Amino acid sequence: MIKAGIVGGTGYTGVELLRILSLHPDVTVSVVTSRADAGTRVDAVYPNLRGLCNAVFSLPELDNLASCDVVFFATPNGTAMLMAAQLLEKGVKVIDLSADFRLQDAQEWQRWYGMEHACAELIKEAVYGLPEVNREAIKSARLVACPGCYPTAVQLGFLPLIENNLIDAGHLIADVKSGVSGAGRKAELATLMSETGESFKAYAVGGHRHLPEIRQGLAQVAGKSVGLTFVPHLTPMIRGIHATLYGQLLGDTSLEDIQALYQSRYADEVFVDVLAQGTHPDTRHVRGSNNCQMAIHQPQGGRTIVVLSVIDNLVKGASGQAVQVMNLMFALPENTGLRIVALYP
Amino acid sequence: MIKAGIVGGTGYTGVELLRILSLHPDVTVSVVTSRADAGTRVDAVYPNLRGLCNAVFSLPELDNLASCDVVFFATPNGTAMLMAAQLLEKGVKVIDLSADFRLQDAQEWQRWYGMEHACAELIKEAVYGLPEVNREAIKSARLVACPGCYPTAVQLGFLPLIENNLIDAGHLIADVKSGVSGAGRKAELATLMSETGESFKAYAVGGHRHLPEIRQGLAQVAGKSVGLTFVPHLTPMIRGIHATLYGQLLGDTSLEDIQALYQSRYADEVFVDVLAQGTHPDTRHVRGSNNCQMAIHQPQGGRTIVVLSVIDNLVKGASGQAVQVMNLMFALPENTGLRIVALYP
Amino acid sequence: MIKAGIVGGTGYTGVELLRILSLHPDVTVSVVTSRADAGTRVDAVYPNLRGLCNAVFSLPELDNLASCDVVFFATPNGTAMLMAAQLLEKGVKVIDLSADFRLQDAQEWQRWYGMEHACAELIKEAVYGLPEVNREAIKSARLVACPGCYPTAVQLGFLPLIENNLIDAGHLIADVKSGVSGAGRKAELATLMSETGESFKAYAVGGHRHLPEIRQGLAQVAGKSVGLTFVPHLTPMIRGIHATLYGQLLGDTSLEDIQALYQSRYADEVFVDVLAQGTHPDTRHVRGSNNCQMAIHQPQGGRTIVVLSVIDNLVKGASGQAVQVMNLMFALPENTGLRIVALYP
Amino acid sequence: MIKAGIVGGTGYTGVELLRILSLHPDVTVSVVTSRADAGTRVDAVYPNLRGLCNAVFSLPELDNLASCDVVFFATPNGTAMLMAAQLLEKGVKVIDLSADFRLQDAQEWQRWYGMEHACAELIKEAVYGLPEVNREAIKSARLVACPGCYPTAVQLGFLPLIENNLIDAGHLIADVKSGVSGAGRKAELATLMSETGESFKAYAVGGHRHLPEIRQGLAQVAGKSVGLTFVPHLTPMIRGIHATLYGQLLGDTSLEDIQALYQSRYADEVFVDVLAQGTHPDTRHVRGSNNCQMAIHQPQGGRTIVVLSVIDNLVKGASGQAVQVMNLMFALPENTGLRIVALYP
Repeated sequence: MIKAGIVGGTGYTGVELLRILSLHPDVTVSVVTSRADAGTRVDAVYPNLRGLCNAVFSLPELDNLASCDVVFFATPNGTAMLMAAQLLEKGVKVIDLSADFRLQDAQEWQRWYGMEHACAELIKEAVYGLPEVNREAIKSARLVACPGCYPTAVQLGFLPLIENNLIDAGHLIADVKSGVSGAGRKAELATLMSETGESFKAYAVGGHRHLPEIRQGLAQVAGKSVGLTFVPHLTPMIRGIHATLYGQLLGDTSLEDIQALYQSRYADEVFVDVLAQGTHPDTRHVRGSNNCQMAIHQPQGGRTIVVLSVIDNLVKGASGQAVQVMNLMFALPENTGLRIVALYP
Repeated sequence: MIKAGIVGGTGYTGVELLRILSLHPDVTVSVVTSRADAGTRVDAVYPNLRGLCNAVFSLPELDNLASCDVVFFATPNGTAMLMAAQLLEKGVKVIDLSADFRLQDAQEWQRWYGMEHACAELIKEAVYGLPEVNREAIKSARLVACPGCYPTAVQLGFLPLIENNLIDAGHLIADVKSGVSGAGRKAELATLMSETGESFKAYAVGGHRHLPEIRQGLAQVAGKSVGLTFVPHLTPMIRGIHATLYGQLLGDTSLEDIQALYQSRYADEVFVDVLAQGTHPDTRHVRGSNNCQMAIHQPQGGRTIVVLSVIDNLVKGASGQAVQVMNLMFALPENTGLRIVALYP
Repeated sequence: MIKAGIVGGTGYTGVELLRILSLHPDVTVSVVTSRADAGTRVDAVYPNLRGLCNAVFSLPELDNLASCDVVFFATPNGTAMLMAAQLLEKGVKVIDLSADFRLQDAQEWQRWYGMEHACAELIKEAVYGLPEVNREAIKSARLVACPGCYPTAVQLGFLPLIENNLIDAGHLIADVKSGVSGAGRKAELATLMSETGESFKAYAVGGHRHLPEIRQGLAQVAGKSVGLTFVPHLTPMIRGIHATLYGQLLGDTSLEDIQALYQSRYADEVFVDVLAQGTHPDTRHVRGSNNCQMAIHQPQGGRTIVVLSVIDNLVKGASGQAVQVMNLMFALPENTGLRIVALYP
Repeated sequence: MIKAGIVGGTGYTGVELLRILSLHPDVTVSVVTSRADAGTRVDAVYPNLRGLCNAVFSLPELDNLASCDVVFFATPNGTAMLMAAQLLEKGVKVIDLSADFRLQDAQEWQRWYGMEHACAELIKEAVYGLPEVNREAIKSARLVACPGCYPTAVQLGFLPLIENNLIDAGHLIADVKSGVSGAGRKAELATLMSETGESFKAYAVGGHRHLPEIRQGLAQVAGKSVGLTFVPHLTPMIRGIHATLYGQLLGDTSLEDIQALYQSRYADEVFVDVLAQGTHPDTRHVRGSNNCQMAIHQPQGGRTIVVLSVIDNLVKGASGQAVQVMNLMFALPENTGLRIVALYP
């Protein structure tokens, strides 16, 4: 059994890790930390785990965590970078769900995240945890930086077009809609039900932290820098991301060929599902599951290709992907513990 | 492997059976019928099942169904009673999620359901599928009538008080709130999002079909007829039932003793979970799971006992309970395929 | 023109007062205070008021407020009692939407609200602002304590039965469901969309602050103390209260007579609307309006009478009722500025 | 008093007309038709109108309607074109909220709407009812075709850029999100709460009927044909449209100049409100009101201009705009009966 630790177990990505790992056949969650709830049983805070989790929240101390085989950071940005080096030294693998090790350029990280990077020396070693791009590197990594929720939906949607240089990488548009759980479990006016229910809005149009991350990922596969307009929106639901992606075709590839390309690109990917041409994915069909479902359109046969890509922000966009990464790091079948059917209706 | 058939696979209880059974280690779903969608792949209608279900909807024909070990009826009322006898004859076990065999009195059934009962001779044999009451009978049953969603939440909540004659069984009140999926998957004005979202109302206060079912179940454990006022409400969410139950204490039993009684009554029940005194169950903590969570209160130390009981109407209130019943009928551990953590948030 | 001031203009009852008063033909809102937002334009915080409100939030200072004819307190409990006396001295009428002057017994107030009452000498003078009970007293009042949202829905629903001694006042049950805006506009984990959406729960079953207020109001019309079990619930919508009220008939009054009694009791009440027998009110039909709609049932012709009563918690349950009270205090037609059609769908 | 008739009073645009007109000081609604509900009181179907509307649904007969000064068609497509000519002959003004007279090209109309146009001779006379573009023509029109909901939000958002030839009109993108009330009040599986709640999806990406309408409107102000990719989405709320519009700058106009241009273009428009640079409109701030609020962004100072434009689909996107049009046709102040504050929260 793999002994796993979770740092920051009281946020939504933390409890989602617990939902998945408590039924994972090869994992025992031996440490769950929370400064605020130390000493409290986990299932007192999360009654959905009653009967499946006997853990008690503890303080995030190195000694405890060092006894684990793998530690997940489900923390706000700025925490993993303070503890990762010590854990790696002790031989513990680290999977960071926060943004600390996502950007390869520490300067750019500091600009977007508003603090100095405390562990820039590990940035190079950190592997960006998108299995559909970096599977081999993940298998042998000690430290993985899991992608953000928006970046997962957007990159998976654009990848085949960019990899094959089929669209103008200088003029990409990602119009993306997220459920409110993406904002995390913290007391804030802006995410009250009375403030977000029955309402829809864009936010951070001037620049969102996931922009440089998406640009970096797409640039790597494009082999050159890309131009991206990224507009995130808040939609009145709890879980789910819907990315609507726009690109301008460069040549004369037919929609049928593009459809075939997507199907072939993702044929061996257990969590990426290319729907039939002409269909529309729906976030509820991936709710609670680790799947990304997508469909490709070419409205009116024009030069604009529209890709629709949906995930559950807390699963494929966070904790599910982290477990997928862990499975790779420990040479388990990639979908171990992740055979979950989306909850519909 | 148990070969299972599902009649009426396009409703919400049908797709919920598929969600659960597609991961059940001892079951293969070999037949899924739907008059409307015959010939269509199941996962074309329900993309959440892609990769987990290769079935194609077929017409509900006896020959096909007779090859199954067990057939679930996830149909509107009035269908199971037309086919059950023939299936039983062929040696197929039948689990009916509809109301056809729930009431022991055919006359009363006809009054509430507005049609003649086509198979009254089987009513006596049918076992009412509430495992917490009828476990042994279910194990040896050929035909099980699964309880309705409201009756499950209300009976589980009242049982220990009634069984022990602690409250006045002549003056029970059940104020119950349901998510809209309880109304089923059919095109109706009344359950449009625009008609049910952001709104709350009672309905059928004059008399709901689940009233005689609850009365029958409580009368059996009380050993006498009971008086029940049952007021169902529609709440603007998809899944979940919250029963708020009121009873008048007969003697001087303390709340501590009642709490202990509930804990002891349900100590061996894997799907009934008595929360700590003073707490309040929340439907989201059972969403997608087969659990019933409950808490007992005695406001201001008065004679009124308040029991709060929550379930997911589609799981413990329908398809999950049906699988629990099937496990019992086939001598499997009762929670096989039902180790599901509620989806929170 | 009446010059009105609003203390605590950034909460939901504050902005709701602004919504109503900005179109009231006889009122100018001259002062809106907010400690947190002093100096900011009101419509910068509430863009729905753009074009209709030029006010700037100011600090809550006596001098400014003393220039008003009437001051509304849309503040948390404990604020109005610090300023009311001084304003009354200056000849300003005071309408308090908080709980400071609702309970006639200062000791009981302190027990339920957890602080000492700073202005017990005014409690006697304060008129409880339920126009359907206290209309004449309100007309000549200097200080009005507006009822809470739950107490408004519950009292209006029970009144005709209690006034006429038709039900057992010792065994009343009020099972009440509220939208989340009742919890106010403050950063709290418990009212996040991710915590309240798609979920239903009871809370404060052990004792809610509105319990003594309802008991006091019903006792006054009953002429004796009453026994009430009050169970509040949180329902996943923003606005609306649905009270389901249960009482035991004392004599043999027929449902027809009770229906006639309700219609006659409220015949002259512009904001209380008794629906036809057998119907079910829906909170959306009063959303945004100052109406209370209700229906009376007698399930199975038994001794239990069920009253369904709905209001918008922010309008008839708070700010709309406060404006209704103001109209009475200034001898305006009671519905001035309150002719609002509920927003459906 | 203007005598108004409403044909098709049982849909959402019909009841919304009633909400607005029942408080309009210069209008009496004298006829409300509904084939399905003829003979029923309007307020029995719509209890939110109790006390404000004494009308009874009647059959849609010419004689009744001919007694009106103006008739609104709140009908499905294909009805207004059968009755408009006769009403105009009788001197009745006609305001059509359906799509019958929106497209100037009858052939194109037939292609998109799948039926033959029954009254092509009136298409030329019909004025497209977007006051911000066609105010003078509307004032003297006999027949007005009110814009669709999507076309209103998109055209108002793009207008200043197109009118001034600032963006490449050949490559416009409109990513638009609508609440489910836009689908109308009809029994359909796809708009059940269980099917649309807690979920987000695109639809009709291959081609939506509002596409030719938007193209026609933008082409008229551009003076040439335009290229538009239009992707509509369904968002889990009842009311509201959020258009996110993307255009490529042609020259070097600064964002400040564009902001100034928008403010000046709409300075005299009472229902179009340009928010401060850098802000994000929210659909709840226009819910129930006739306002369009918008904001302009230039992410990362690039060549892509992003306009965010929000309306209430049932008000500025339908019935409110129809009343605005009526006010113009009858020489009333444009905002008569439309001074409504959006319902927040």
